[in-house]
Amino acid sequence: MSSSAIKSSNVVWHESAVTRGDRERLKSHKGVVLWFTGLSGAGKSTLAHAVEEACFNRACHTYVLDGDNVRHGLCGDLGFTAQDRTENIRRIGEMSKLFVDAGVIVLTAFISPFRDDRERVRKLMPEGDFLEIYCKSSLERCEERDVKGLYRRARAGEIPEFTGISSPYEEPLNPELTVNTGEWSIEKSAAAVLRLLEDRGILRPCERV
Amino acid sequence: MSSSAIKSSNVVWHESAVTRGDRERLKSHKGVVLWFTGLSGAGKSTLAHAVEEACFNRACHTYVLDGDNVRHGLCGDLGFTAQDRTENIRRIGEMSKLFVDAGVIVLTAFISPFRDDRERVRKLMPEGDFLEIYCKSSLERCEERDVKGLYRRARAGEIPEFTGISSPYEEPLNPELTVNTGEWSIEKSAAAVLRLLEDRGILRPCERV
Repeated sequence: MSSSAIKSSNVVWHESAVTRGDRERLKSHKGVVLWFTGLSGAGKSTLAHAVEEACFNRACHTYVLDGDNVRHGLCGDLGFTAQDRTENIRRIGEMSKLFVDAGVIVLTAFISPFRDDRERVRKLMPEGDFLEIYCKSSLERCEERDVKGLYRRARAGEIPEFTGISSPYEEPLNPELTVNTGEWSIEKSAAAVLRLLEDRGILRPCERV
Repeated sequence: MSSSAIKSSNVVWHESAVTRGDRERLKSHKGVVLWFTGLSGAGKSTLAHAVEEACFNRACHTYVLDGDNVRHGLCGDLGFTAQDRTENIRRIGEMSKLFVDAGVIVLTAFISPFRDDRERVRKLMPEGDFLEIYCKSSLERCEERDVKGLYRRARAGEIPEFTGISSPYEEPLNPELTVNTGEWSIEKSAAAVLRLLEDRGILRPCERV
């Protein structure tokens, strides 16, 4: 912790600061953002929650940001035009940066279709704080699953600017990890992410859960 | 933790969720937002950091949101008109809500001059998650300190819509706590906030630090 003194007319108030390093030492793991990107239905949110559960079982402090808790709140004023999507990702990026500074392993699950938007988030943070995880699943596979019925509605023209149908998805060029969510089991997918966290020194290695 | 199964064409993906309660049990303290409000120079940020340090010394997980980490990032696109101030507080409120859900003791230090804006944030959260702490210091005292030289510039007309000079500050009507930061020492002020946290069951009582 660092401190400095502010002298007012009658009392001395010390400015103290608990640092990210202090918080990370308290928790025995580092803060990081795991940025899951991929088509709707590729399994981003499900994978993020599975990784969160595995981290929690190791007493790590995690938080998942996804459409459920962000789209109705912080970004409730934004729609799905290219401009609004960019602002949506910017805000999520800025918020993620603060969660990382708080020492949390933050897992974000958003389509985040545009390469430039993702790169801007990466550049907000020190090298190594942003790990891009591409949840790879073919459009055919995602459309075949169509868990929420969104593809059917998009094909029927009921949802404009739908990624993969009427709006592009730009694949990551150099993600820290590609998970073939369209082919792999959830166990295999989550294990690949945990291995990444160990390799990067975010988590300490332990027996596989 | 709760879980439900999603059945796709070939693999079963379980949807798991680590809850706020899980995180709070892991940390042995509750999540809450301590919303410090008051004039510029009333000592909000200094007090927030002092409380954070005391909480950290009890192994609690805290995070301070203030102008330093929010105004250049998440709210970097906003100015100081009434409309922009309202949007600023809305975003900080929504973000705080997510930090609380993550089980963190989040301390916000913003002038937040308008009663309606603060009430909107309070209503975002379940009862008891939002504790309003009024950092009370007379305009004269704040202006006399003028740590950042802002009052001098505001009086010279260089800063428009400056709270207390050319824009109103609406005092809290029923704050959970009023701290007379204009008169009290930092130790007395921080102790009052810690006592509130104990009384509300956020922290477990222990010997005074």
